[in-house]
Amino acid sequence: MELYFSPMSSSLAARAALYEASADVRFIEVDRKTKRCSDGTDLRAIFPLALVPLLRLDDGRLLSENVAILQYIADRLPTAGLAPSSDLERLHLQRWLSFIATEMHKAIFAPLLDANAPDGTRTHILKKFEPRLQYLNDHLTGREYLLDRFTVADAYLYTVLNWTMPTRVDLARWPAIQGYYEHLQIRPSIARAFLEEMALYKAELARQKAA
Amino acid sequence: MELYFSPMSSSLAARAALYEASADVRFIEVDRKTKRCSDGTDLRAIFPLALVPLLRLDDGRLLSENVAILQYIADRLPTAGLAPSSDLERLHLQRWLSFIATEMHKAIFAPLLDANAPDGTRTHILKKFEPRLQYLNDHLTGREYLLDRFTVADAYLYTVLNWTMPTRVDLARWPAIQGYYEHLQIRPSIARAFLEEMALYKAELARQKAA
Repeated sequence: MELYFSPMSSSLAARAALYEASADVRFIEVDRKTKRCSDGTDLRAIFPLALVPLLRLDDGRLLSENVAILQYIADRLPTAGLAPSSDLERLHLQRWLSFIATEMHKAIFAPLLDANAPDGTRTHILKKFEPRLQYLNDHLTGREYLLDRFTVADAYLYTVLNWTMPTRVDLARWPAIQGYYEHLQIRPSIARAFLEEMALYKAELARQKAA
Repeated sequence: MELYFSPMSSSLAARAALYEASADVRFIEVDRKTKRCSDGTDLRAIFPLALVPLLRLDDGRLLSENVAILQYIADRLPTAGLAPSSDLERLHLQRWLSFIATEMHKAIFAPLLDANAPDGTRTHILKKFEPRLQYLNDHLTGREYLLDRFTVADAYLYTVLNWTMPTRVDLARWPAIQGYYEHLQIRPSIARAFLEEMALYKAELARQKAA
């Protein structure tokens, strides 16, 4: 497998899941502005939307969309136990993956991270979607993970919660989310993914500044 | 099964899929402003986020999130062939469901439908996400469906494309999307779901006006 990623973007979830499963993977870094890849290619020539994560499967085909990629990784590397095996629990995994992708990633953090969003976006988004964060906080109260054990949904939610830093969203208002995030932060697969990507992210910023 | 829905919202996708499979279902209408349900309950008491679609499974449990609900319907009613059976094709179904949920529904149409969004949102969103519509148009060029045959992903994409009407997004710029939409519009399951929900939607508007 090959994972196209940009440091600290949503592709960090796939990296953490791959580390969790000790998978043999080649990581290809994509500059988020130029879309140039670390192997010399241009991501737009491979995938017109030029979005990461993008996973090249063993048969050479490409798979986009975090929700699909994370389930592929879980199913491809089943001994890591990154997805539940029962049909009912798999439904709840899909439900949480979708909640994170739609309500957390796209509805809340994507607009907050968008430097070109219209004035007033931040206030509007935080007010409108506050009930989602409260709902998540209620769910995580007394729980270590979204489901009964660590799954790819936790890798994704952790990744999205990283964006509370650049967007200055104070998790102190939602103590169960904050506790969950801090607990995951020290999980070895996640700590490694975070520290490696943070270093690459700083290097990317330095390159952009020098250019 | 029971489907909590609001007319012309994203829950129309589940209705179309259920009609496609000739499923035995009870539909419970939810007023999108008050969250009162047609069976007299308040959706917030059942599901704190009070979002539709919400599906009550045969064992009484509740399932939220369109991406999970649509796959459940496809798997629960396999003779309708609403999801591919091969693992690889299922991945691509998940990939398209996620693309529709994140890029189309949440990134493009949710902000366009949001009457309280900050000034400038419409122009910003249409400019930023135009490449997504172009990508979809390219994929649909020469195709009848997102995958090789009609699946729940088409029911979802059709539903989202309905929102081009209230948001005045002119599909003429993307002729393959327009052709796809018009072709699905006359599919019996979809035509029935559309016509029934449009009537309910008009009745809802009339109730709100009278109130």
